[in-house]
Amino acid sequence: MTQRPRILVVNGPNLNTLGQREPEIYGHETLADVETRCRRRADQLGLDIDFMQSNHEGEIVDAIQQARGTAAGILINPAAYSHTSVAIHDALAFAELPTFEVHISQVHRREQFRHHSYVSHIADAVLAGAGTLGYELGLEWLAERVSDTN
Amino acid sequence: MTQRPRILVVNGPNLNTLGQREPEIYGHETLADVETRCRRRADQLGLDIDFMQSNHEGEIVDAIQQARGTAAGILINPAAYSHTSVAIHDALAFAELPTFEVHISQVHRREQFRHHSYVSHIADAVLAGAGTLGYELGLEWLAERVSDTN
Amino acid sequence: MTQRPRILVVNGPNLNTLGQREPEIYGHETLADVETRCRRRADQLGLDIDFMQSNHEGEIVDAIQQARGTAAGILINPAAYSHTSVAIHDALAFAELPTFEVHISQVHRREQFRHHSYVSHIADAVLAGAGTLGYELGLEWLAERVSDTN
Amino acid sequence: MTQRPRILVVNGPNLNTLGQREPEIYGHETLADVETRCRRRADQLGLDIDFMQSNHEGEIVDAIQQARGTAAGILINPAAYSHTSVAIHDALAFAELPTFEVHISQVHRREQFRHHSYVSHIADAVLAGAGTLGYELGLEWLAERVSDTN
Amino acid sequence: MTQRPRILVVNGPNLNTLGQREPEIYGHETLADVETRCRRRADQLGLDIDFMQSNHEGEIVDAIQQARGTAAGILINPAAYSHTSVAIHDALAFAELPTFEVHISQVHRREQFRHHSYVSHIADAVLAGAGTLGYELGLEWLAERVSDTN
Amino acid sequence: MTQRPRILVVNGPNLNTLGQREPEIYGHETLADVETRCRRRADQLGLDIDFMQSNHEGEIVDAIQQARGTAAGILINPAAYSHTSVAIHDALAFAELPTFEVHISQVHRREQFRHHSYVSHIADAVLAGAGTLGYELGLEWLAERVSDTN
Amino acid sequence: MTQRPRILVVNGPNLNTLGQREPEIYGHETLADVETRCRRRADQLGLDIDFMQSNHEGEIVDAIQQARGTAAGILINPAAYSHTSVAIHDALAFAELPTFEVHISQVHRREQFRHHSYVSHIADAVLAGAGTLGYELGLEWLAERVSDTN
Amino acid sequence: MTQRPRILVVNGPNLNTLGQREPEIYGHETLADVETRCRRRADQLGLDIDFMQSNHEGEIVDAIQQARGTAAGILINPAAYSHTSVAIHDALAFAELPTFEVHISQVHRREQFRHHSYVSHIADAVLAGAGTLGYELGLEWLAERVSDTN
Amino acid sequence: MTQRPRILVVNGPNLNTLGQREPEIYGHETLADVETRCRRRADQLGLDIDFMQSNHEGEIVDAIQQARGTAAGILINPAAYSHTSVAIHDALAFAELPTFEVHISQVHRREQFRHHSYVSHIADAVLAGAGTLGYELGLEWLAERVSDTN
Amino acid sequence: MTQRPRILVVNGPNLNTLGQREPEIYGHETLADVETRCRRRADQLGLDIDFMQSNHEGEIVDAIQQARGTAAGILINPAAYSHTSVAIHDALAFAELPTFEVHISQVHRREQFRHHSYVSHIADAVLAGAGTLGYELGLEWLAERVSDTN
Amino acid sequence: MTQRPRILVVNGPNLNTLGQREPEIYGHETLADVETRCRRRADQLGLDIDFMQSNHEGEIVDAIQQARGTAAGILINPAAYSHTSVAIHDALAFAELPTFEVHISQVHRREQFRHHSYVSHIADAVLAGAGTLGYELGLEWLAERVSDTN
Amino acid sequence: MTQRPRILVVNGPNLNTLGQREPEIYGHETLADVETRCRRRADQLGLDIDFMQSNHEGEIVDAIQQARGTAAGILINPAAYSHTSVAIHDALAFAELPTFEVHISQVHRREQFRHHSYVSHIADAVLAGAGTLGYELGLEWLAERVSDTN
Repeated sequence: MTQRPRILVVNGPNLNTLGQREPEIYGHETLADVETRCRRRADQLGLDIDFMQSNHEGEIVDAIQQARGTAAGILINPAAYSHTSVAIHDALAFAELPTFEVHISQVHRREQFRHHSYVSHIADAVLAGAGTLGYELGLEWLAERVSDTN
Repeated sequence: MTQRPRILVVNGPNLNTLGQREPEIYGHETLADVETRCRRRADQLGLDIDFMQSNHEGEIVDAIQQARGTAAGILINPAAYSHTSVAIHDALAFAELPTFEVHISQVHRREQFRHHSYVSHIADAVLAGAGTLGYELGLEWLAERVSDTN
Repeated sequence: MTQRPRILVVNGPNLNTLGQREPEIYGHETLADVETRCRRRADQLGLDIDFMQSNHEGEIVDAIQQARGTAAGILINPAAYSHTSVAIHDALAFAELPTFEVHISQVHRREQFRHHSYVSHIADAVLAGAGTLGYELGLEWLAERVSDTN
Repeated sequence: MTQRPRILVVNGPNLNTLGQREPEIYGHETLADVETRCRRRADQLGLDIDFMQSNHEGEIVDAIQQARGTAAGILINPAAYSHTSVAIHDALAFAELPTFEVHISQVHRREQFRHHSYVSHIADAVLAGAGTLGYELGLEWLAERVSDTN
Repeated sequence: MTQRPRILVVNGPNLNTLGQREPEIYGHETLADVETRCRRRADQLGLDIDFMQSNHEGEIVDAIQQARGTAAGILINPAAYSHTSVAIHDALAFAELPTFEVHISQVHRREQFRHHSYVSHIADAVLAGAGTLGYELGLEWLAERVSDTN
Repeated sequence: MTQRPRILVVNGPNLNTLGQREPEIYGHETLADVETRCRRRADQLGLDIDFMQSNHEGEIVDAIQQARGTAAGILINPAAYSHTSVAIHDALAFAELPTFEVHISQVHRREQFRHHSYVSHIADAVLAGAGTLGYELGLEWLAERVSDTN
Repeated sequence: MTQRPRILVVNGPNLNTLGQREPEIYGHETLADVETRCRRRADQLGLDIDFMQSNHEGEIVDAIQQARGTAAGILINPAAYSHTSVAIHDALAFAELPTFEVHISQVHRREQFRHHSYVSHIADAVLAGAGTLGYELGLEWLAERVSDTN
Repeated sequence: MTQRPRILVVNGPNLNTLGQREPEIYGHETLADVETRCRRRADQLGLDIDFMQSNHEGEIVDAIQQARGTAAGILINPAAYSHTSVAIHDALAFAELPTFEVHISQVHRREQFRHHSYVSHIADAVLAGAGTLGYELGLEWLAERVSDTN
Repeated sequence: MTQRPRILVVNGPNLNTLGQREPEIYGHETLADVETRCRRRADQLGLDIDFMQSNHEGEIVDAIQQARGTAAGILINPAAYSHTSVAIHDALAFAELPTFEVHISQVHRREQFRHHSYVSHIADAVLAGAGTLGYELGLEWLAERVSDTN
Repeated sequence: MTQRPRILVVNGPNLNTLGQREPEIYGHETLADVETRCRRRADQLGLDIDFMQSNHEGEIVDAIQQARGTAAGILINPAAYSHTSVAIHDALAFAELPTFEVHISQVHRREQFRHHSYVSHIADAVLAGAGTLGYELGLEWLAERVSDTN
Repeated sequence: MTQRPRILVVNGPNLNTLGQREPEIYGHETLADVETRCRRRADQLGLDIDFMQSNHEGEIVDAIQQARGTAAGILINPAAYSHTSVAIHDALAFAELPTFEVHISQVHRREQFRHHSYVSHIADAVLAGAGTLGYELGLEWLAERVSDTN
Repeated sequence: MTQRPRILVVNGPNLNTLGQREPEIYGHETLADVETRCRRRADQLGLDIDFMQSNHEGEIVDAIQQARGTAAGILINPAAYSHTSVAIHDALAFAELPTFEVHISQVHRREQFRHHSYVSHIADAVLAGAGTLGYELGLEWLAERVSDTN
């Protein structure tokens, strides 16, 4: 079982407040709930996951760098750093892994400054607005992608 | 079986050429293959689907209007009309149904004029770059959404 | 009576759903109600009308072309095609008829993409926000314009 | 008769020169002619009117403020101040009355700087290009609007 | 003779009105005259032609798709759809044929919105302002191009 | 006591309607209430004040010019003229006095056209969103500034 | 002598402070000095002048309107209203007189918002940066222009 | 006394260098001086304060999150992060506390890139240019706001 | 034979390197080859040609000026000066001759800065992407144009 | 007489065609006529002039460089190079002489690309639209400026 | 030897991956190799160096602040933070040291978002595209600059 | 020694005035001094150099063209032509040589129009702000580059 492909799941700033912050936009599930959903779905798909959250841009860069050569793919919700971080973009370019970018809310229907994502310049797939289910859909896509390349 | 919620699956212009057109971008599956995938997955999820394709903006508007009150959700790949059709946007506003927008390719990594989608102003969720698997992920989200509201 | 000047009344995409779609914006009258208002007012003004609606840009272009030399004026609610159709603009340039552009809602107070209209580059008069009464006001203007040129 | 709803008719800068200034654009009627048209039509519609013109932005702001609670609606041709006056916009927001904005010429076919109107951010209806008949059409709309709310 | 390379000649919206619409811009020849010119010149060049016109974006997309593998090249005057149709752009990408875009008038000296053409992103050659002779020059280029690849 | 430094307090267009206009944005205090607050606070701070309001740009320019050499500072709420008056900007440049610009509402969270202020190019300090208390805070800053330069 | 052509000399807002305001930009001459220069030069050129200054946009509009048919030309330093007044532009269009726009400072080397002038859309000649001598040069041009048309 | 409402005072990057960095812009007071001012004024106003500074965006996000439900308001000088941090914006949206944004210098008179602040999208009040006194004015506003809601 | 209409053929900067520079874009023909093609085709069409190339903007301006009244038309490939030379534009305005602008490559599919041409503001016809055959097509158009005006 | 201050008069590209090119814009005087006017007026003003014209940007740069230390001022009509030459701008910065920029036509009423002038970033005074009289007015200003600094 | 001027060498995010990330852009040297080059070259130039790398914006700000008064100059490769960090810009403004900005790749030939650097607003010299040799060239410049100021 | 690789050193317009023009920006060295520095450093590096300067764009284009196949690299300070010359860009594309672009001043801290360089689209390395030492650093880079490819 320890042989299973490992997916790094990255959660950006303020996602630790999920369930409390603007629940009319983000819903009532907490990040722990999301982690539970991810672990259960990953298990069904034959994947292991590393689940992290940080408010620090540098820590996210560190984690993505370390995924290179050790993980099979990345599922990332960059949150606010989507719109401002070229450093995370560059870390993903370094990682050279299948990458699925997920946003809980439908960012294209929110403020103008949320419409552009640096991460979308590099991610293989981008999903917005599917709520926390979006994490599971991302894992499903990564599972297929990982099995394709095996 | 006829009681099952029905999803309208709309395919925009040139998607009838799938598998032939720029396969390095869109892959080798044909639209018939996509329909087969959708039907199989819908079946698993307890959904019926109406699957249509048109190169005519007006026909797509007609189809979406007719979905109001008869379908349970819409899965739409507006293709080129994403970027130029306010009429489809308005038809979706009329339909008042859960709507999932899907793009086979990762449009944010292509020409500038593919970065903006009028449909994204109205869709509940938007997915780009997951290939034809994206259709199945969209159905999965619609299934959950439909069951939520029942 | 058949001698009376004839006005082509053109209704663009999704106007067939009037009364159902977003009634807080467009009101509760149907397009049939609008047609009734137009016919009654036209009759008072000594005008005949041709009343059409289409979701197809090409059909609207065809209708406008055919008005040249046969109609005395055009009343057009281009709806979504206001913002995206150069072809309708060019058809109106061909028709060379007095043209009144009408929008039921006050488009300048809605989304940014509704602020620009290609039809306004060619129409003689433009009215927005007067509701369905706007059709009648347009006919009144056309009646005066037609009588001026006789 | 003194009970009849009163409409404030506001004319912006340079409209006192109507009939003399650029008649190929604005026609040969003078502002006195326009006032006569307005009074006659208002009378038919059961309305009283206050008709004013000023070249001073501040006087127009004053007049609109005083209309609050005393007038039943506003018909305004802001002329050049359409494009430059946030103060008139704010006065209209204060007045909280049905407001019809009218332009004699079709501003969307003239210089670029005439395409944007601050007043259009707040007016309920906007008409351009119908000549001086536009004033009458505006009164007709205000009459209907006033009777609706009675 | 039936073996001769076939060129699809596509005419966009309102070109059926050629000779009547704005003759100071487009001249007095009708589309039938243009077809005659094209057939005569094609004959000299050893080409067959399919000559079509439509006001419907979808019909033009259909025609271009069908040209793939059956025609040797495309001569297209997209008219108003030049400026608004990504769908025709995508159909041409699918067709994978030598493509010559022609405009009768010199679009760069007309309204701003005629300066950008989506078709020019994909066409091999673009000609504007040479009048209806432009069709013949396009055929001449296509003839050379076809013979090069044989 | 007549020796006390004098501050000119300028209120721009429509501020005479304070308390009535859009109270959800501007609150329920009237301009007379604001004047009372200012006089009381000024008294505590050892300042005299001249309190004016005008809807006329020219009157505001006149008042600011006259402050040069006679007043010790300016507290200005330019209201709508913030966004459109270079003349007030230039008058302030002439006055050469410590200047505090105040907006009752938080203009950066309102319409786009309220985000830019010509007065902010010249004012020493700018405060927005603190309600009518903002006037008092401005006086406090002016008091310190005046005492610094004495 | 009363037969001599009359030139209206208009000075916009804050020019009454000339000589005091930012002398490093505008110099040390007062507006009275400028008037003296103008009168002396006009006399040499055989012209009469009307010399006015106002901080009120409306008063400037009034003065320009009255010049129509009574004055032979206009020399205008619109100052801050250059950049914000469409009303003055429209008054000049009404006046239909030879118009010379003058700026004491070289506006193209100052703040960005001083680079655009609405008055320059209508003036026959525009001069910036020649200091108060610019008024005299403008009169010289007007003298030649007036004599040309006699 | 420990019952007193607590205000979180946040200082962004480089503010630890206050008094040394560009004193012609920021003055000679150090951050310790500012803290002293704040504590003294808070004491007068019946407030407690938490005073922090960090060069790390993530640490500021952490601190703001922790203020939710424990502090009564936030006084924030985001310094350089004003212009680049959506993450701090989102943390403030989560905190749901009265928020006063303060800048020591008058940012609207400095480089273009300092004119936009993400924090201003969410702050209740914004003050720039009042020097270090601005912190005290912010506390005064927070004191009133806190007492209003009690 | 010396009576034949003369066409000035102008080649802009770097065209002397044709055949060597980026042959994947410009092909392998040299400018001498192009001249030969032009002379042969001109001969067939009954035209004489003057064929020049220069890297100096001023020399091109000189040549175009001298064509006025002596040449019957201009065929110009302005190369890099298309995008930067108003002087050549103005020289063509002076020449008042039928002008055909030709680009060997399809400039609309290359760098953004090659999409705009000052020459296209004045040329009667513009052709891009037809390779060196484009010169011949331009001569053919000029021949027809010249014979039309005779 | 050889002691008199010398003014360099620079004429940019295409001005050698003056009187022939677009006389409805530029009038019927030739550049020789302009030179005569300049010489006569310079003589009255006690100035010598060097009068040059070139279509070559480099020659104009050379001439301006040589004026440094030898001429007393520069009168320049940069014509088309106004809009495209940073090199002339830099040469003028090197010359460090009083500089008067003159345009015969009123460039602000012509094409958009004629509204910006690099030379206006450095010239002391700019005049447009005064026809060839503008040269004389420029000399008059230079004469005053030269005598001021003596 | 400990007396030698010390240069702080700062490496921004992801530079710890040098040699592995996109070697076709960045080459095969590791950051350790770069450090070795820098130390060897610094030694030749009589400089000491402090060599650091961080993925954390705040750590880079800290390091630059500490350089003030202790280091003789800064060599910085801000990597992704070039484009997004005003905080590093402000730290450099505080440091008041000769600063050389270096980019290994030629950023002006890469994505649009790499063309702007906040650091370039403050750095004394900027070099891009010289590969890792760029570090040595920067040290050479710093050596000269340091010796100049001694 | 004649075997040594030869570098073309190109100096753009106004660089012949080095040492005289704006010495606070460009320093006091003359171009002859720069040439001396270059020759000495080239000698150390085993390179020969051709050193040229011209104010004529066309001469620079000529020189670069001739370098193809004869020189080993190009060191270019395009000065003002950086910002306006596509022709030099195209000549460099033709030359196909290692190219180092150098600016004496730090152009990113000067006027906006100096921030964009056409040459930077094609140069391999770009250096700004290192003063005349920048030429030497460029030669050093070219030396390494030349030896790499040998």
